[in-house]
Amino acid sequence: MIIALRPGTEKKLVDQVVTEVKKLGYQPHPILGEVQTVIAAIGDERSHASLEALATWPQVEAVLPVQRRYKLVAQEGRKTATVVKAHGVAIGGNEPFCLMAGPCSVESEDQLLTTARAVKKAGATFLRGGAFKPRTSPYEFQGLGEKGLELLALAKKETGLGIVTEVLSEAHVDKVAAVADILQIGARNSQNFSLLKAAAASGRPVLLKRGLSMKVEEWLLAAEYVMSSGNGQVILCERGIRTFETAVRNTLDLGAVALAKRESHLPVLVDPSQAAGRADLVIALSRAAAAVGADGLLVEVHPNPAEAKSDGQQQLDLKGIQKLAEEVLPFVKAAGRAG
Amino acid sequence: MIIALRPGTEKKLVDQVVTEVKKLGYQPHPILGEVQTVIAAIGDERSHASLEALATWPQVEAVLPVQRRYKLVAQEGRKTATVVKAHGVAIGGNEPFCLMAGPCSVESEDQLLTTARAVKKAGATFLRGGAFKPRTSPYEFQGLGEKGLELLALAKKETGLGIVTEVLSEAHVDKVAAVADILQIGARNSQNFSLLKAAAASGRPVLLKRGLSMKVEEWLLAAEYVMSSGNGQVILCERGIRTFETAVRNTLDLGAVALAKRESHLPVLVDPSQAAGRADLVIALSRAAAAVGADGLLVEVHPNPAEAKSDGQQQLDLKGIQKLAEEVLPFVKAAGRAG
Amino acid sequence: MIIALRPGTEKKLVDQVVTEVKKLGYQPHPILGEVQTVIAAIGDERSHASLEALATWPQVEAVLPVQRRYKLVAQEGRKTATVVKAHGVAIGGNEPFCLMAGPCSVESEDQLLTTARAVKKAGATFLRGGAFKPRTSPYEFQGLGEKGLELLALAKKETGLGIVTEVLSEAHVDKVAAVADILQIGARNSQNFSLLKAAAASGRPVLLKRGLSMKVEEWLLAAEYVMSSGNGQVILCERGIRTFETAVRNTLDLGAVALAKRESHLPVLVDPSQAAGRADLVIALSRAAAAVGADGLLVEVHPNPAEAKSDGQQQLDLKGIQKLAEEVLPFVKAAGRAG
Amino acid sequence: MIIALRPGTEKKLVDQVVTEVKKLGYQPHPILGEVQTVIAAIGDERSHASLEALATWPQVEAVLPVQRRYKLVAQEGRKTATVVKAHGVAIGGNEPFCLMAGPCSVESEDQLLTTARAVKKAGATFLRGGAFKPRTSPYEFQGLGEKGLELLALAKKETGLGIVTEVLSEAHVDKVAAVADILQIGARNSQNFSLLKAAAASGRPVLLKRGLSMKVEEWLLAAEYVMSSGNGQVILCERGIRTFETAVRNTLDLGAVALAKRESHLPVLVDPSQAAGRADLVIALSRAAAAVGADGLLVEVHPNPAEAKSDGQQQLDLKGIQKLAEEVLPFVKAAGRAG
Repeated sequence: MIIALRPGTEKKLVDQVVTEVKKLGYQPHPILGEVQTVIAAIGDERSHASLEALATWPQVEAVLPVQRRYKLVAQEGRKTATVVKAHGVAIGGNEPFCLMAGPCSVESEDQLLTTARAVKKAGATFLRGGAFKPRTSPYEFQGLGEKGLELLALAKKETGLGIVTEVLSEAHVDKVAAVADILQIGARNSQNFSLLKAAAASGRPVLLKRGLSMKVEEWLLAAEYVMSSGNGQVILCERGIRTFETAVRNTLDLGAVALAKRESHLPVLVDPSQAAGRADLVIALSRAAAAVGADGLLVEVHPNPAEAKSDGQQQLDLKGIQKLAEEVLPFVKAAGRAG
Repeated sequence: MIIALRPGTEKKLVDQVVTEVKKLGYQPHPILGEVQTVIAAIGDERSHASLEALATWPQVEAVLPVQRRYKLVAQEGRKTATVVKAHGVAIGGNEPFCLMAGPCSVESEDQLLTTARAVKKAGATFLRGGAFKPRTSPYEFQGLGEKGLELLALAKKETGLGIVTEVLSEAHVDKVAAVADILQIGARNSQNFSLLKAAAASGRPVLLKRGLSMKVEEWLLAAEYVMSSGNGQVILCERGIRTFETAVRNTLDLGAVALAKRESHLPVLVDPSQAAGRADLVIALSRAAAAVGADGLLVEVHPNPAEAKSDGQQQLDLKGIQKLAEEVLPFVKAAGRAG
Repeated sequence: MIIALRPGTEKKLVDQVVTEVKKLGYQPHPILGEVQTVIAAIGDERSHASLEALATWPQVEAVLPVQRRYKLVAQEGRKTATVVKAHGVAIGGNEPFCLMAGPCSVESEDQLLTTARAVKKAGATFLRGGAFKPRTSPYEFQGLGEKGLELLALAKKETGLGIVTEVLSEAHVDKVAAVADILQIGARNSQNFSLLKAAAASGRPVLLKRGLSMKVEEWLLAAEYVMSSGNGQVILCERGIRTFETAVRNTLDLGAVALAKRESHLPVLVDPSQAAGRADLVIALSRAAAAVGADGLLVEVHPNPAEAKSDGQQQLDLKGIQKLAEEVLPFVKAAGRAG
Repeated sequence: MIIALRPGTEKKLVDQVVTEVKKLGYQPHPILGEVQTVIAAIGDERSHASLEALATWPQVEAVLPVQRRYKLVAQEGRKTATVVKAHGVAIGGNEPFCLMAGPCSVESEDQLLTTARAVKKAGATFLRGGAFKPRTSPYEFQGLGEKGLELLALAKKETGLGIVTEVLSEAHVDKVAAVADILQIGARNSQNFSLLKAAAASGRPVLLKRGLSMKVEEWLLAAEYVMSSGNGQVILCERGIRTFETAVRNTLDLGAVALAKRESHLPVLVDPSQAAGRADLVIALSRAAAAVGADGLLVEVHPNPAEAKSDGQQQLDLKGIQKLAEEVLPFVKAAGRAG
């Protein structure tokens, strides 16, 4: 930590800070500058108390942390990227670009199986589909729940696709993990640490969506919760952040994908459907995701988007997912990966 | 819902939309404009399927909802404001301005009792203090857990203050509700709908923090989850939103307080400590909160902020809370309320 | 500046940074930490080259500035607050709370004079009104231009009110300054440095609106452009920032007002009309502005808002401004000021 | 426009709105809904007064515009994309992907010519470089001004590259246009309408950066200012928007690029340097920009970024731009364009 004192702070008040820094377990190095004194506090910021509270002292202008706060998710010191394995598919590293696709919500056997076959044909290896749905309003469709899980199990059996689906409640982790090959933590639960720990304990790989207003550092620290709970099979998923722009639902942040790939060894997927919130931008954003270095996509697909029970405006139809797969492939190859 | 069609859409394609609108249960009223056709779809938007998915159709330019999505929390049609009652204290309506104060985290018996006595002296009727703490990093202090709850029970017994404390997990609701007079749902769990429903079921009043990037509408809909679960004792709490500004931790949005008071009959508190993230702005923001019409404050206080185990930089010391109470009082009175 | 090196950087690469820091005119102090080496670079950051570009070097993790970048606008080292004087009225310091009010746009003699008389009666000392209007679309009403200035001059003569009006172009500074007692720089021009310098050169006090996505530091640095051009008569004006919230036009940031008052000696006003973008929240926000410590208000008023040529939805009518003045007064007094 | 009335509004008050809508020149169509009455107001929203001010009336819940506000920049009704021609190079449509590169600031003859030769070798057709620099602080390097323009003219002569450079002031338009083949309007001036009109009048193509917190609609409306001033040669340039994320300088919004290409016929470039604010992400973002469908790039390059007089941390060195060109090419080809 670096503690910057206010210009003109007298020695007595500098010493007071030095003493407190020592008391809190750091080794203080005061440096007299032209304009102000700064105190470098040496010590591992992750194992010591934070010094940030010193900012309440009148003579302290600012306290600046200098160390990264995450360890297990960090690229630094790692030789190889993490490859997550689920349902026989490898995700991340130099493995093929991974397509996960399916409806926003599981609505019926027919809807799910029709979609599953189409996305498989388009090259997807995982079927996505919500059984438990987090909806902004209590009056909106909340998903089929356990019935939805049964349908996912059926679709898996019928098509051989792996299953990725969201878990909303600690109380559902076991049930969901019995069907899902990958547990999805949604954006609204990305800092629901109780749920993160429960999902980690299931032993299933965890796909962690970035929260709506989550800094990349916070996203990595949420992944650190999973890893420090003993589960190293974490997939990050960028799905757009909340900004002032109203023409799209969220702003897809591909810089965050590039950054997460630099800072961490974990695979990073992109969800262009949630990001755009409108189907007409999904293919363009998918191309860009492949180009920026993402390890795969999570895409919403519905046989008849206009009658979808949730988020129809952002779902591709069955021709759309085929078109997406074809249009994205050249960019996957340009990125030096198998499609 | 209003469906705006693209300029120049031919009749056949207009009719296609009209037919679909009927199929989805609304009554369609097409209106031929100078520039474009719009179709007004009559029907209760809360009980019917959403028409927003029609935006995926090529001839549709935009779909605009016109109805409010919340019912139970809405001011409209209500004669009186909700007054929440907890531990013999009435909050909201024309009741006295309510001060809740205490440490960010419960750290020890001494720390808690010292603080409790000081905040009581300053006029607080509730003691706040985290036993279970949601921390961005897994390596930060996570709270004393059940031991923390015991200390809160002790402080309640010693001082007679009511207790408000955060519940982080569905699994803890019963334990927390056994001690707390008001269950707090934190900003990071503000759309953790499983937890909202579990908290509602406890029968305790629920204090619902606004999420970091939650629109006022979404905040009210989260409250609607609690109310539609049968618990009408909800207190809203604005605690700052996430913006681009880095000089403060969050941007306190007092316009949202004014708006929530207009749109809803629920009491609204303000947490200036989480908002500012720095102690030196807490009193000024508290004055403004009283002036804008908030029903009370939730303030962080610690006997020695520099050595606090969490968020020391934003906690007032024991003199600070006394000063706050004194400085805020004239504004409470100017707002026509008892202090 | 503090330069944090990556953990495990070898000595040779540390020395390389040390050498470059010296070359750029700073005195380097390397400190070996437990986790990483940091180099404190001593020197006035305002007169030396920035070291931030060192962040491109592979061994550098981060470069952290520690000094404030503004001088003339800074509170630090000042004994007294700046009091701006215009048209015989003193603004800032302990002077009375200042009310500036008037229409968004000057539309006609009748509209302007009717409004001017009403705002004077309500206690305003300045009449605001746009002659040159910055409009998002070229098809919207752009103001009456010079004719608008003439009407402002007439209203000044008739009522004795001071005039504050926006200048949009360097080419108009002289004309506007011939009529206006205070030159307003709008939010969209808050970093139009050519205009800031031209306005400063007019010798008139400058009212500087905060930009839509301007950090407080950037706002103060924009004011520093005016002051360093030799014009110390600067008034800051917070008018809401752009966030994700769509229920209001902008999010009024009263924390920024408190912060600007702490960091700077300049007067700070609040424009609740632009902030809310809706008339029904203007009085509540004005109360809060007085309570947080603002030095006055800039409020939009129109005799018939529904037919205003710009921004009618946020303008108070003539009764509204009277009501505002009455409702704000107790909060001004609670803040220890004359109304 | 759609005017939604509050539920339960009595007929007299509905009629009042109907009358006002007529008075303002629209044709009113009231529709009685299950929950509330809505009034569709037929008329060209661009040539009539806005009805938004009706939102101040107590019986009005919301006023919703339904028409697009831009005309000349709109894709709708156009058969072909605009191809901007400057210095013999065609930009947009199906023309080759265009690389503009060069230093943030022009610093010296040697720095500029060295860079110019390197970017030409990498395939750039335009040299960028700031002569007049908009800097957040008045104490930062403000550019060489006219001397910088002379050096740009020299570099053009030496290398044959076209010149794109920023104009900061209406007073400089002629001087800058004498040297520049394309006039750049920076993000901070993106709603400086006086400057936009002056730049348009120069007859030079205008490269319009998106503002830091500009919605896509506002960006297109700023372009509409240029086009409605008689200059159809406009290039849009996305350079990142301001969000809560602090790990990068701005958040590159590639969804906005896809959207601008859909909504408008104008060419769209991407500036990955300003967006990331850090050199290590520039190539990844450039790849994504090509994939999303951008018409070219504007990239910052410096022979020795660590000693650059502005923004060194985001500038590529001479090897870097070569590497960028090589790495981006496969993505340009995958997008079906010449490099």
